[in-house]
Formats: sequence, structure tokens, C-alpha cells
Amino acid sequence: MRLSELSELSGIPAATIKYYLREQLLPPGHRISATQADYDESHLRRLRLVRALIQVGRLPVATVREVLGHVDDASLGRTIRLGAALWSLPHGPEPDDEAPETATARAEVDRLLDQLGWESVREIGELSPVHRSLVASVATLLRFGYPYEVGYLVQQAELMYQVAVQDLDMMETHPSEKEQVETAVAATVLYEPLLTSLHRLAQEEESARRYGL
Amino acid sequence: MRLSELSELSGIPAATIKYYLREQLLPPGHRISATQADYDESHLRRLRLVRALIQVGRLPVATVREVLGHVDDASLGRTIRLGAALWSLPHGPEPDDEAPETATARAEVDRLLDQLGWESVREIGELSPVHRSLVASVATLLRFGYPYEVGYLVQQAELMYQVAVQDLDMMETHPSEKEQVETAVAATVLYEPLLTSLHRLAQEEESARRYGL
Repeated sequence: MRLSELSELSGIPAATIKYYLREQLLPPGHRISATQADYDESHLRRLRLVRALIQVGRLPVATVREVLGHVDDASLGRTIRLGAALWSLPHGPEPDDEAPETATARAEVDRLLDQLGWESVREIGELSPVHRSLVASVATLLRFGYPYEVGYLVQQAELMYQVAVQDLDMMETHPSEKEQVETAVAATVLYEPLLTSLHRLAQEEESARRYGL
Repeated sequence: MRLSELSELSGIPAATIKYYLREQLLPPGHRISATQADYDESHLRRLRLVRALIQVGRLPVATVREVLGHVDDASLGRTIRLGAALWSLPHGPEPDDEAPETATARAEVDRLLDQLGWESVREIGELSPVHRSLVASVATLLRFGYPYEVGYLVQQAELMYQVAVQDLDMMETHPSEKEQVETAVAATVLYEPLLTSLHRLAQEEESARRYGL
């Protein structure tokens, strides 16, 4: 398809698409003449993702380029490719190594992961910014005098594991590895807020069931 | 205890505590002389919560005052008291009634809630800002051309319901209704980021199990 058709189908103005092309957020179309190029389904899919990252994820263009670089890197194994793409997305706070609670938090997180038997996550360790955020959040709990109960977190983590299994099953309905990684990135930006809303609504429902409306 | 002791136990400078007292984020102590007041455990607990809301939740003082007003309002039934306190916390996007996808999103959310049998949430409807955020997130999915599969969301929502049951069980380990509502507010601010980290870590673990490290 031509750029005008790509614009129509995606609902994104042609000028914006040209900007994405210049910024290398969208791969060039197949040249068919000196002034025209041909675009396909993969461009439409990529445009959709770029828009989600910029408009919903509020990512700066440089970060979008980095995320997409990992999505497109077929030399990586799937877990690393997924990881690299997702780790470039914004994540939670970094642990403060000056704070006395951080060492305790690290030990608590290790204990949690051991109880869960999440061996790969344990092996990847604080290379993962998600792991580091977890340490930071636990350190905050401790610093503010809130209890950290490993048993409670094990239960919650096991439920989140079931959610993750569904996430990956959904991802695998897409045919190519590249589309799967694209889907995972889009899901993190678009579905995570939805999951948070469902969690809070579930609390409202359960509260009404226990205590009345 | 005296203000100096309250400061020491909480780790919060006396000047900050005086500021919270002036801003009515902390109830006054029991006057024991013209210049001295006595504080107790409830003050310590409240300080902890105020600090979590301001430092982690990044809430402005006026919002903290509003949240605490609901926490302290014993005239409300427990579900409404909880709801009012939690609804004052920051939440997701509001639906855009101008956007053509919003009506479809509303119908999809209703269908989801019907399938889940979440009757109270259905009854409360868009009075709840959480409900409104869910509609807004679904509308975004639709607008950006991502699929909305009610079956997938039902599964995820049912798992989040199990998480919510654990949340309320944990809340009920606290003796008074007031402490329970305080705990729910603190948990929303402090544990929600932790749950998000656990979700993403679970995806990493499951990815490594399926595709290798």
C-alpha cells in the first residue's frame, strides 16, 4: 500500500508517519519508484505499537527506538529478546544502596524467590530492572515501618504467576517471534493499567460482599 | 509520649511533625500542660501513613487531608468508607466521552462484569473512578486497534479477585475498622508497585521456562 493508504488505515496523519520514518521508528517501505514506496501489514502493526508507546506509555522517541531495536534483534534468544525490550520500558524505583534497609530488602527478596522456586529470576538477579524495583519497594516498606510478610507475598506472587502464564499463552497465539515480542511490549503498556483497575474493582466487589454496600 | 519521642520513634523530624499538625494531617495530642501534649500509638500509625502518602504516593497535602477525612469518618459503612478513601487516591485516565470508542468500551466492560458476576461493582458503576479508568483503558485498546478479548480478561479478573480476597484477609488481621481502612490505603500506595513487579518477574520466569535463558 502507499503512504496515503497507510495513513488512512492507521488513522495517523501522513506527516506523523513521515516523522516516524525519519526517526527510524518505522522501517522504510519497499521503493517502487524514485518518489514512491510500498508498505505492508508489518508497517501497520509497527505504527500501532509506536503510537501506543508514545501516546499511552509516554515514552520519549529515543526510548521507543531502543525498545524497537530489541524487538527487531533476531540474533537474541527469545527470553533475552523479550527481556531486553521490556526492560527498556519505564519501570519502578531503583534501590538506594545508601539506605540501611536495602540490604535487608535484598535478603527478603531472595528468600521470597527461593520459596517461589523462581530459579531463572534468581539467576538473572539485579540485572533485571524489575528485580531492582522489587528490592526498592520492599526497602520502602521496611523504612516506613510496614510489615513485610513473605507468606502473604508468596501467595500473591503465585497468583501473578498464573496471570503471566495467561499472558504468554496469549502472546503465543501470534505467528512469528517478532510479532510475539511486539505483542508483549504492547501488552505491558496497554494491559497493565487494566490489570490494576481489575485488582481495585475486585477489592470493591469483595468489600461489598463482606460488609454490604 | 512527647513530641520528641514521637519524632525519634518515627524517624520524622519534629518540625515536620509540627507542620503535619498545623495542616491537620495528624490529630492533636492530649494537652497535658499549656506547652505540652501527649501522643500515642495512633499518632505513630497516622504519621507512618501520612509519610507513605506524601513520599511514595506523591500526593499533595490537600489530597492527603481528603483521604484521611474519609479514613476517619466513622459514620460511613465500611465499604463506602474504604471506597471513599481509596477513590481519593490517584487513579487512571478518565473516559473521553467525545471518542467514538467509549460507548463500545462501556458495553464491553458491562459484559465483562456480567460474566464475572461482580454485581456490586456493576451497581456502583461509573461512580467509581476505578470503573471509569477501566472503561478508558478499554477504549484506548479499541482506538489503537488492539483486540479486546472478554474471555482473556475474565480469566485475569478472576485471578485478581483471588488477590483481592487475600488483601482483605490481610486487612482484617487489624483490630479496629479504622486501622483496617488505614491499612487498605497504605497497601494501595505501597503494595501495588510490588504487585506490578511480581507480575513482570513472573513473566520473566515463565519465559525462561518456556524458551530457555
